[in-house]
Amino acid sequence: MAGATEGPVREALDALPLVDHHCHRVVTADLDRAGFESLLTEGDVWPGVSPFDSPVGVAVRRHCAPLLDLPRHAPAEDYLARRAALGGPEATRRFLAASGTGVFCVDTGYPPGPAALPVEDAAVYEVVRLEGVAESVAAAGVEPDGYAEAFRTAALAAVRRPGVVAVKSVAAYRTGFDLDPHRPTAAEVTGAAARWLAHGGRLAEPVLVRHLLWTAVDLGLPLQLHTGFGDGDLRLHRADPALLTDWLRLTAGTVPVLLLHCWPYQRRAAYLAAVFERVHLDVGLTLHHVGPARAGAVLAEALEITPFRKLLYSSDACGVAEFHHLGALAFRRGLAELLQDRVDADELALPDALRFAAWAGRDNARRVYGLPGDAPDGD
Amino acid sequence: MAGATEGPVREALDALPLVDHHCHRVVTADLDRAGFESLLTEGDVWPGVSPFDSPVGVAVRRHCAPLLDLPRHAPAEDYLARRAALGGPEATRRFLAASGTGVFCVDTGYPPGPAALPVEDAAVYEVVRLEGVAESVAAAGVEPDGYAEAFRTAALAAVRRPGVVAVKSVAAYRTGFDLDPHRPTAAEVTGAAARWLAHGGRLAEPVLVRHLLWTAVDLGLPLQLHTGFGDGDLRLHRADPALLTDWLRLTAGTVPVLLLHCWPYQRRAAYLAAVFERVHLDVGLTLHHVGPARAGAVLAEALEITPFRKLLYSSDACGVAEFHHLGALAFRRGLAELLQDRVDADELALPDALRFAAWAGRDNARRVYGLPGDAPDGD
Amino acid sequence: MAGATEGPVREALDALPLVDHHCHRVVTADLDRAGFESLLTEGDVWPGVSPFDSPVGVAVRRHCAPLLDLPRHAPAEDYLARRAALGGPEATRRFLAASGTGVFCVDTGYPPGPAALPVEDAAVYEVVRLEGVAESVAAAGVEPDGYAEAFRTAALAAVRRPGVVAVKSVAAYRTGFDLDPHRPTAAEVTGAAARWLAHGGRLAEPVLVRHLLWTAVDLGLPLQLHTGFGDGDLRLHRADPALLTDWLRLTAGTVPVLLLHCWPYQRRAAYLAAVFERVHLDVGLTLHHVGPARAGAVLAEALEITPFRKLLYSSDACGVAEFHHLGALAFRRGLAELLQDRVDADELALPDALRFAAWAGRDNARRVYGLPGDAPDGD
Repeated sequence: MAGATEGPVREALDALPLVDHHCHRVVTADLDRAGFESLLTEGDVWPGVSPFDSPVGVAVRRHCAPLLDLPRHAPAEDYLARRAALGGPEATRRFLAASGTGVFCVDTGYPPGPAALPVEDAAVYEVVRLEGVAESVAAAGVEPDGYAEAFRTAALAAVRRPGVVAVKSVAAYRTGFDLDPHRPTAAEVTGAAARWLAHGGRLAEPVLVRHLLWTAVDLGLPLQLHTGFGDGDLRLHRADPALLTDWLRLTAGTVPVLLLHCWPYQRRAAYLAAVFERVHLDVGLTLHHVGPARAGAVLAEALEITPFRKLLYSSDACGVAEFHHLGALAFRRGLAELLQDRVDADELALPDALRFAAWAGRDNARRVYGLPGDAPDGD
Repeated sequence: MAGATEGPVREALDALPLVDHHCHRVVTADLDRAGFESLLTEGDVWPGVSPFDSPVGVAVRRHCAPLLDLPRHAPAEDYLARRAALGGPEATRRFLAASGTGVFCVDTGYPPGPAALPVEDAAVYEVVRLEGVAESVAAAGVEPDGYAEAFRTAALAAVRRPGVVAVKSVAAYRTGFDLDPHRPTAAEVTGAAARWLAHGGRLAEPVLVRHLLWTAVDLGLPLQLHTGFGDGDLRLHRADPALLTDWLRLTAGTVPVLLLHCWPYQRRAAYLAAVFERVHLDVGLTLHHVGPARAGAVLAEALEITPFRKLLYSSDACGVAEFHHLGALAFRRGLAELLQDRVDADELALPDALRFAAWAGRDNARRVYGLPGDAPDGD
Repeated sequence: MAGATEGPVREALDALPLVDHHCHRVVTADLDRAGFESLLTEGDVWPGVSPFDSPVGVAVRRHCAPLLDLPRHAPAEDYLARRAALGGPEATRRFLAASGTGVFCVDTGYPPGPAALPVEDAAVYEVVRLEGVAESVAAAGVEPDGYAEAFRTAALAAVRRPGVVAVKSVAAYRTGFDLDPHRPTAAEVTGAAARWLAHGGRLAEPVLVRHLLWTAVDLGLPLQLHTGFGDGDLRLHRADPALLTDWLRLTAGTVPVLLLHCWPYQRRAAYLAAVFERVHLDVGLTLHHVGPARAGAVLAEALEITPFRKLLYSSDACGVAEFHHLGALAFRRGLAELLQDRVDADELALPDALRFAAWAGRDNARRVYGLPGDAPDGD
């Protein structure tokens, strides 16, 4: 059980400034109960089913309350009252600082806005969500036969801004991954753009989603892909990363691919990371939703066959900074539990455990995104 | 490992009169070896492969033998001999009483017959299996264009009988969930009824299965759905509850949906329970088949992200009352193991653990089905 | 955690001469770093991502180094240097002997060549890979309308050679299991053969793959099927053994079917083993790739509902004999951990645990393949 593990791996992970390679901005304003609860769940808030009575709610009361000067397991009412008394900005500041994160890579597509977090002593980079770029192009007005070039131009402009380190796609939400893996022809793109532009709305046209993924390859930056767990807008079975296999094969030798979240498909993601050079994975979002009590179990599955060079850390925290803190805590404890147990059982040497912990928490992300750093392992 | 956990959560769960929200009737008659073994497995009985040599058989010898005054782990031969000596009715009475169940909701569609169990001090309610209703309508004779109305009328009559608290569908067996999620038109239903009625047999016509699910919505009662694990008549990959996503979205705001069994898709079911207000789940059938040794592990996955308001208890016991006992025992020990471990690791407060235990074992079912009770948590 | 478990089950499993019912030949020649690393991974070797920095690499350094007279966890460089100094043949001999395997069943289709391993005191049998037979028939030249008969004749000749105990198919790689389950007609086979023979190459024509599976049924020998985890040539979601359900139903009562590897679908494979008489499973390949640290967890899932008569041992070791050793070690420790924990928790009687251990490690394979033995359990 996470939480009980102590020892040198835990100490090293607790001291490591993490690279959170995928997160979102936060609401720093004060939040009432309805507002806070709505940010606590991937569903909605329903009568009689408080999000506090879920694994993530339990984890917030256990691990976030003390940062608001409350006892562990403080009741939800006390938590909300104290958070309100401190004010949203102060609470946010405390959680972000407590996360011990050195680098945040912020998906600026949701909620839309600049990459910014109220942090000192941490670097903030930007991840450009390509569906947002495409939808902006459509909103600005474009002819179907000009869509491909306009999207490409806008995406290039977006990624050339300072601080942009990656692009992201939510194709998993829009169509799922059961797509024709081939690059669509110009004529197919024009025809699909005509269909989409006639009605507008979110980009969910299969040919254009496919075109978006191939455009991402052309951009040359690492590509983050939502896979698995998310909100109620998803069809989970179509977000299985294994469905990407043919596309990964066709795009071999191009950009790094970062499979985000993955749960409950973490083993399938691990398979892809084990056999495709560019594929990496994290279990962000999952870790704070399952909480420290299960983070070790989920990480253990994710790491069953994953090369230790291929696991990254992300919180995928969104909305409330509690999740930036909880994500980091669950990752540190879960990974420490897993590695220290193996060291204690003499299945793993301590120096290797410390190396793998630093890779997963920081160095693998530095390597994939080309972030500055001390390159402590000479890679 | 389940079985070793002691402490206040286990004590509370051991004392809690469970609501078994989905089970079946039992054979109270005496059973010979072949008869007993055939009820012990979801498969058939094969030469050289005794169902006693499976996890559920091991659990029966361990946990049921003492209720027949035998030592733990008694050999199968001794078990069968002692059960025969006591007689089926007495054995059944002992197991049902030992289950500590306060309410049984009995699926009267399989085996067909009235909702009845030889219990004292327990309430028995009925769950109406809609495929059985439809097949009775067909057997009684109906024209294709009268099918929809006749089915609706028969279903209404069935659910208005005293003691009926829910309906159930085995669509997972008949077609699987990869169905067009939309309500079929009257013309589609008539056409499909013509095809089905021409040949008769089990209801497995995709349009009519879809129509059955939508009729369930109209009935207004909670809808139990078989998902995942079952007997050899299943295509497991088509019983994945995630395939229901679009249908759940279209029927939002209507009846409660109870995902039964779920294994090995308990995480996908948990996702649905986390993002759809009406969706609840259990891991019935699974718990006694995996036995107390693995019940905690399966529950831990099922509860990774499930709101604690959304987990229910069912045994799905069928045929022999050993399973009503084993299901209850595996649930109590598995859930106690999970919750007590978190309390011991200071990841969960004891009052919350006790609350969640009572919810899952009794109160969530009372709430969904509107069962009488003390409503101890004021819900 | 595996490794720490001691007790009578572990002692019994350590002393048991295993039947490795599915493995491959080894490279006995000396290997340089690139050559060794390429055999260590199911992927390729990529810059900056050494296969030693993966769970299987960690396990090799931990459990294989001592057999080369090195300390546990020896660095990769030391390991490779010592292996080179000893020479490939000597290293191979040590690992094969340390595996404690009494019987090896060798898939002679990959790498192609005779069933042979440098072992003393162990029997070696052959498993004929049917795709190789079909491709040899094509390479030798055949008319489309003669293909079915030529394939059948060649397969019969292949399986009638001394020492052949089973056939194998890699349909999972070629088309996946989402095939029409019915036996193709002669005309369909001829048409498909015309398409395939016109282009040659690997057998991946869906009708012919289906024909191959039905031909396997006609041959009458146990049929090994690759399912789940493998190299990068796979589409993992199409290798789900549940997709075989309709074919298993149609072929009921014919040959034993052995589901190999299964991960991450071990629970679905377990369902098939629980409801279809002929279906058996192993978690070979997986066990050494996840290493002893996770072998118990994977086996626990595989055994949740599997009858104890239905689990077999295989290493699926290929290329380097380290894997024959590691597979055996991970199996012994993982199964001992699982069974001994249950004995210690009084969930399982020790004699039953010992019986199930011997079944899984040796006797079930003897039974399925009709291998000679003492038939110690009178079966």
